[in-house]
Amino acid sequence: MSDVDFLRSKFRFYPDFPKKGVAFADFLPILQDPIAFETLITHITHHITSHTIPSISSSTKGKPPSYHPNGNGKIDVIVALDARGFLLGPIIALRLGASFVPVRKKGKLPGETISVVYQKEYGTDSFDIQVGAIKEGDNVIVIDDVLATGGSAKAAGDLISACGGKTVEYIFVIYAAFLKGHEKLDAPVYNIIEVNE
Amino acid sequence: MSDVDFLRSKFRFYPDFPKKGVAFADFLPILQDPIAFETLITHITHHITSHTIPSISSSTKGKPPSYHPNGNGKIDVIVALDARGFLLGPIIALRLGASFVPVRKKGKLPGETISVVYQKEYGTDSFDIQVGAIKEGDNVIVIDDVLATGGSAKAAGDLISACGGKTVEYIFVIYAAFLKGHEKLDAPVYNIIEVNE
Repeated sequence: MSDVDFLRSKFRFYPDFPKKGVAFADFLPILQDPIAFETLITHITHHITSHTIPSISSSTKGKPPSYHPNGNGKIDVIVALDARGFLLGPIIALRLGASFVPVRKKGKLPGETISVVYQKEYGTDSFDIQVGAIKEGDNVIVIDDVLATGGSAKAAGDLISACGGKTVEYIFVIYAAFLKGHEKLDAPVYNIIEVNE
Repeated sequence: MSDVDFLRSKFRFYPDFPKKGVAFADFLPILQDPIAFETLITHITHHITSHTIPSISSSTKGKPPSYHPNGNGKIDVIVALDARGFLLGPIIALRLGASFVPVRKKGKLPGETISVVYQKEYGTDSFDIQVGAIKEGDNVIVIDDVLATGGSAKAAGDLISACGGKTVEYIFVIYAAFLKGHEKLDAPVYNIIEVNE
């Protein structure tokens, strides 16, 4: 079984959660199995070191460029979304030697923040980021568990742009591709598993 | 500077957040600095492998005991609290080869769940855990960023007990010791930093 098939086999699908007509893809069983969890983290990290980093240029306008040892641009920041994205983002940031920056629901972050309102699959909400956490010209990857309609990922991308950062990629464990969420996003999307219904 | 002094120097304190009269200790600057973040994770992991695991017996009633290679009881599960605990718990679980199980705010977890209502520093709330995520006799550590009044940590402990698990320790980055939250908890508390006002 490939690593992707192994990870797919660990997902549990719940119809009509959190509301009727929506099918919820639960990746928490992966986190309950240390070998599956390591397989997931290794898959994402390998994608970034083998594909993403070689694809970004080391010339970053607006600040002295930060170089990856392989001669290309470095990933400066991993951004993850409150709350399930927090289960993945910090681990990936540590493995890359990048900064980890959370995007949180309104009012949860202390200090000076920037906010955006966004459209969710089940209503609207607002996200905050701390001012100064992302710097002008930073190369940023956004990580979350699921890409559905793309509303929350777009909000993260908008906050990164507002801070002067550049989103180089959006990474998800699973993508509900029929919702076409990638069309809202300003950088390439990578997902491990795709579902089409 | 000791590792603890280094970590303490990275905290930012915000008076009157999230409400007047409360001082908020923000550990997010640690996560923005990969060396500080690794220092934090290594400190916690070393505490568990050098202190916690040698202190737990390998004889666990109710199921065949799971042994740590050092001859003592194994940590079977790391539980962390929605949402800031999610930034730490999964990394520690991976390093220990333990299962990671989240405790989430009401209605966020799919499938069959158990709930408890708890008292927060700023009101009441309800927490859920997925049925089956913790098994009878599992040795569990609860991890969160801050111990204040102990309401949410106690809720996690109550959920672990309800699942038949045994909480062997509660670990926090920072403890507001004057609030005496440890008195609510059914297992020893370990914290890296203590504040007394």
